[in-house]
Amino acid sequence: MNTPSKHAYVPFVSVDNMMRLVHRIGIERMLCDLAAEIEADFLRWPDFDKTPRVASHSDIGVIELMPTSDGETYGFKYVNGHPSNTKQGLQTVTAFGLLADVATGYPLMLSEMTILTALRTAATSAMAARWLAPEGASVMALIGNGAQAEFQALAFKAVCGIKEVRLYDIDPAATRKCVRNLAGSGLVVTPCRSAEEAILNAQIITTCTADKQFATILTDNMVGSGVHINAVGGDCPGKTELHRDILLRSSIFVEYPPQTRIEGEIQQLASDHPVAELWEVITGRAAGRSSPTQTTLFDSVGFAVEDFSALRYVHRRLKEFGLYQDLDMIADPDDPRDLYGMILRAAKG
Amino acid sequence: MNTPSKHAYVPFVSVDNMMRLVHRIGIERMLCDLAAEIEADFLRWPDFDKTPRVASHSDIGVIELMPTSDGETYGFKYVNGHPSNTKQGLQTVTAFGLLADVATGYPLMLSEMTILTALRTAATSAMAARWLAPEGASVMALIGNGAQAEFQALAFKAVCGIKEVRLYDIDPAATRKCVRNLAGSGLVVTPCRSAEEAILNAQIITTCTADKQFATILTDNMVGSGVHINAVGGDCPGKTELHRDILLRSSIFVEYPPQTRIEGEIQQLASDHPVAELWEVITGRAAGRSSPTQTTLFDSVGFAVEDFSALRYVHRRLKEFGLYQDLDMIADPDDPRDLYGMILRAAKG
Repeated sequence: MNTPSKHAYVPFVSVDNMMRLVHRIGIERMLCDLAAEIEADFLRWPDFDKTPRVASHSDIGVIELMPTSDGETYGFKYVNGHPSNTKQGLQTVTAFGLLADVATGYPLMLSEMTILTALRTAATSAMAARWLAPEGASVMALIGNGAQAEFQALAFKAVCGIKEVRLYDIDPAATRKCVRNLAGSGLVVTPCRSAEEAILNAQIITTCTADKQFATILTDNMVGSGVHINAVGGDCPGKTELHRDILLRSSIFVEYPPQTRIEGEIQQLASDHPVAELWEVITGRAAGRSSPTQTTLFDSVGFAVEDFSALRYVHRRLKEFGLYQDLDMIADPDDPRDLYGMILRAAKG
Repeated sequence: MNTPSKHAYVPFVSVDNMMRLVHRIGIERMLCDLAAEIEADFLRWPDFDKTPRVASHSDIGVIELMPTSDGETYGFKYVNGHPSNTKQGLQTVTAFGLLADVATGYPLMLSEMTILTALRTAATSAMAARWLAPEGASVMALIGNGAQAEFQALAFKAVCGIKEVRLYDIDPAATRKCVRNLAGSGLVVTPCRSAEEAILNAQIITTCTADKQFATILTDNMVGSGVHINAVGGDCPGKTELHRDILLRSSIFVEYPPQTRIEGEIQQLASDHPVAELWEVITGRAAGRSSPTQTTLFDSVGFAVEDFSALRYVHRRLKEFGLYQDLDMIADPDDPRDLYGMILRAAKG
């Protein structure tokens, strides 16, 4: 074979290397870094080429591509959502992503993103809560104790100073797993027998359930005034977690309205129902929380810019840690017009 | 570290392994196989979920995602187009692609696609020409002798029985490269000093130039009646190769009108100018060539279904040749809800 040139190689961050990176940086440090990285990109929101994700739906799931670009760097994520996968021992959501150089179109890095998505989702939630949650919030209810739960708990501890998480899941085994994983985290972890019990004295309510269709995880009378709701689980058409009445009396904040109107909790509302965009709050264009009795809702569905921020963060730290392998992914003939000649010579090599 | 489960691994076909595969199968055999594979998918065209590619344009290039699905398998390609790359010794077009299982959303294979795109583009052109070129065509003009040229020459030899290719490029070095690479192919290879000379006695004219903006590679009086034009190079907004008058007197065949109207030669025409879809010709819903004096034009821009066909062909032959490596790309915890626990345990391992 011919030895591929340096242009042929794309650094690849495997699942194993991503786990090593999380440990080397420290998960709470990494969640804080990601929150800062995402916030910095929300501050320059108009720089990004934005498009609703490109979804391919089937009866039992969805495969999506989420591209964005800031004019210098391009990124996209491949992500699936298949709630019934867990029955076969598979992940509901798996993902990988890529960064590329806009000037040449050449890939800069390929990375696993199942873990990275879990981190960026939690970091985004916590970043939003810093702008929206009531002052001095220290107790968070965590309803839905699946794959995203611990990441949310740790992000809210690290970024927002949450001291206690109150856990509830319809499956007690999920709650037990979460209690076990959060032991030693420094959080007070309180398993609860109902959603009602979980939200007692909580200033923040995070819902991150996975496999419900138009479910009502929270009903109207469960939510007192002044609470911040971080609604993570409702993220595709036909999949919501909150009763409509809660939405009607909340100030609603979203990532990117054209996507959230289709995928978020607000798919239950009229298409012109007022919402504020998170980037507008961060840049001072829109008000965040304006009173202690206001109910705020971050209707999170996940947007391409967050994945871009996360990928760029990993890319920037690539050389420092060396946690990647080179993939021979880009054909790079000596003469760029001589692709066929490269194949011919490979035969002789 | 923990040993990842089999679900964690995605077979990856590197550039080196793709070259080996081409040699093991034989390039002409592979071009014929791909033409048959693509034709079979055009025969079941309505089965595919089709969407124009998702493009991110910058001043100097474009990065595109091209997804499709047949309901069982999902595929997408990442591809860039940066004509000025060659000045830096980089490829104008690089690509990679992925197949995934619609039922679970899990990736089935990641593959380089710079080489595979060159093969499928040529195979599609040759397949279209089998339906559209005049009976007994044996001479093809090949205008533009860049990275795609040899693939076109060999595909038309293998699939359509072309005996002679007549080469012209504004850069004589490109033509010399092409002559050199096609020596020993069994084709009569005739370098020409002008496009006019190249099309002498040619029944098929293939244009595959790369870096022109609204160029006129062929003017009206250069094209005699009865010829089949295979227009490969005009494939994005603002990039065309043929004079409009040629289009006006040709029967035009396209892959997917919503995409070709934007990217193809027909961007020069009214948006309702009649065109036939290639799949309609193949399934008998539309006429192909109906007389020896008709000028036919395949306005090729490349469509996601062709990439899908090519990826599935490579995937099907993966185990037989073993030309792949396993990538640890999908996080696969023992308990799918315990993604965080997998990270925790990785620390201890």
